[in-house]
Amino acid sequence: MNETLDKLRLARTEGVGPITYRRLLAHFLTAAAAIEALPGIARAGGRETPPKIPSSREAARELDMVHALNGRIVFTGDPDYPPLLNLLPDPPPALSILGDLAALHGRAVGVVGARNASANGQRMAEALATDLAARQLVVVSGLARGIDAAAHRGALHVGLTVAAIAGGLDQPYPPEHATLQAEIAARGAVVTEAPFGTAPQSRHFPRRNRLIAGLSLGLVVVEAALRSGSLITARLAQEANRELFAVPGSPLDQRCRGTNDLIRQGAHLTEGADDVLANLPDDPRRLGLARNPLFAHDAGQLSDERPLWEAPPDPEIDIGAAQTNILALLSPSPTDLDDLVRRSGLTTGAVSAALMQLELALRVEFMPGNRVCRL
Amino acid sequence: MNETLDKLRLARTEGVGPITYRRLLAHFLTAAAAIEALPGIARAGGRETPPKIPSSREAARELDMVHALNGRIVFTGDPDYPPLLNLLPDPPPALSILGDLAALHGRAVGVVGARNASANGQRMAEALATDLAARQLVVVSGLARGIDAAAHRGALHVGLTVAAIAGGLDQPYPPEHATLQAEIAARGAVVTEAPFGTAPQSRHFPRRNRLIAGLSLGLVVVEAALRSGSLITARLAQEANRELFAVPGSPLDQRCRGTNDLIRQGAHLTEGADDVLANLPDDPRRLGLARNPLFAHDAGQLSDERPLWEAPPDPEIDIGAAQTNILALLSPSPTDLDDLVRRSGLTTGAVSAALMQLELALRVEFMPGNRVCRL
Repeated sequence: MNETLDKLRLARTEGVGPITYRRLLAHFLTAAAAIEALPGIARAGGRETPPKIPSSREAARELDMVHALNGRIVFTGDPDYPPLLNLLPDPPPALSILGDLAALHGRAVGVVGARNASANGQRMAEALATDLAARQLVVVSGLARGIDAAAHRGALHVGLTVAAIAGGLDQPYPPEHATLQAEIAARGAVVTEAPFGTAPQSRHFPRRNRLIAGLSLGLVVVEAALRSGSLITARLAQEANRELFAVPGSPLDQRCRGTNDLIRQGAHLTEGADDVLANLPDDPRRLGLARNPLFAHDAGQLSDERPLWEAPPDPEIDIGAAQTNILALLSPSPTDLDDLVRRSGLTTGAVSAALMQLELALRVEFMPGNRVCRL
Repeated sequence: MNETLDKLRLARTEGVGPITYRRLLAHFLTAAAAIEALPGIARAGGRETPPKIPSSREAARELDMVHALNGRIVFTGDPDYPPLLNLLPDPPPALSILGDLAALHGRAVGVVGARNASANGQRMAEALATDLAARQLVVVSGLARGIDAAAHRGALHVGLTVAAIAGGLDQPYPPEHATLQAEIAARGAVVTEAPFGTAPQSRHFPRRNRLIAGLSLGLVVVEAALRSGSLITARLAQEANRELFAVPGSPLDQRCRGTNDLIRQGAHLTEGADDVLANLPDDPRRLGLARNPLFAHDAGQLSDERPLWEAPPDPEIDIGAAQTNILALLSPSPTDLDDLVRRSGLTTGAVSAALMQLELALRVEFMPGNRVCRL
């Protein structure tokens, strides 16, 4: 129980992102030891004030509130952690969950699309979700207005559906979907990365989108304008090697330009559940699972390589020089980690160690899709 | 002039299809000589009554009527014959044409689709045709209600459009498109395989569809239900190695199921003229131009091989036995010519000679797409 509290404290510490969380636990073995080491690491990264680590009491209060809703918090490494999500290079350290954990362990398909969807688009999403649920697939979506809500509703009374949300478990959004969220929790699951009590803000939605993509074997986009949020979810799904599906529509309807473009780029043209089932793999495609060079241990699960951080530290590395080198290469717009390693001329291990310190010092931030940016 | 009349008589002879027409002319050099030889060839194929060859007067009357409308008849081998059509394995021997021959020599795109098209589908077809015409492409269609008419209208006042029709030049179909046909003839061209005076019947439409496909570098299908005529045109276009384009639409609209399926099978998803222009080749794809084994001389234009029928006749061939062999292999449903040659165990030359006699004897018929069937 103490270890659970410490994991939650670590996960909720400012500057501890998914990658640093995993690296700290891998290195220090327990969350308690990692918490003890945090101030020193942050200082080495150039941070003057120590990182704000929640107290055990604060963590216990969050846990209590989640439990009061009959919810749970699961951590990466827990056997209950959603296995598909765990294949991401940067799985969220702590997931707050209402409902049936089994819904997060099944074969799942994301169904997303425009909030201002057409009546036809909503009808399509609902029918598709019903058919997918009837064929034992879990339907994952984002609880938004329009396509998302139609997808949840289509699946609700037939099978399992999962809502990934941007705010805390106690903050359904949009507010008029509070009842829908409760129904989903009763017959499926509601999941979020956000701490209890977090009011959803626009900056939380990319993480919500990444959850939808990461929890699913494939993603169906039903209606989406060009440059819309659903296309960002589609990009995240593709980066996570999930299958991409799109429902075609009239070129005269702006809400179909995004989905048509996805098809043009290779997404499976989807008119119904058959198109999804015919192209849904048993697992995400293997290729690229280990794309994040800082997570070569994912490749290690496939081959026999040892995780990089288990290698003895290289006494030659000047960590301060590495940090300076890396900061010079980064900017506020995200840089690909592969590029960074290549352009730095440093070893992956050196980049990894330097970035962890810099993240804890709040000088860099890891972004979804193997990217990092300077703050 | 006499040779023109004789060509028309030969082309209008019962049992003389496109392939036999070309082979006869290649062998006998003039239409007059071929006409003289016809009864003997038909008899050798097992026909008891001689083939019905139109008289010179009948042919002259047809020519006069076409000329009275300011039309022309062009034959395969004429310099005016549409060059893209000439790349088919079985180009129609005689084309009756109203309007501007230049329209049949430009870079052309077919735009076809459902007769019972939606308002949106017609709007799409019209806008697409306008944009294609504005970019110097000739828009080819079939004068039908719905998509066809919208495509012609969209192109009419911007550039050139060509109507391929099923009946004679004097028989616009549907009748309410008589004015549209006249407008097209005045600013583009109207073309048909059918003799003057032919009332269009359903059996003429496959040839009309083949004209649309054969006259175009690519074919755009705007709205089409599954198993509709537009999909047959699409298949013909594909067999002629033309690019295939399809406009996507809502899966809830039956009129889009055919176009969506074309996209699923590899047609270019098309939202506008840009999609067409980006994928339109300068020439039909070379591969497969010589697929018809009886027309290896098309390959001969690419390489240096001599046409098969210029080879000295093989004295070993028992033409009667070859005919019996071939008839046993054929049935009323079309058989692929490649298959036929392979399964007969005969040389291509023997199959070719036997089929020509059998066609003239009205015992077999060549079908679009390298197929032959028993009558």
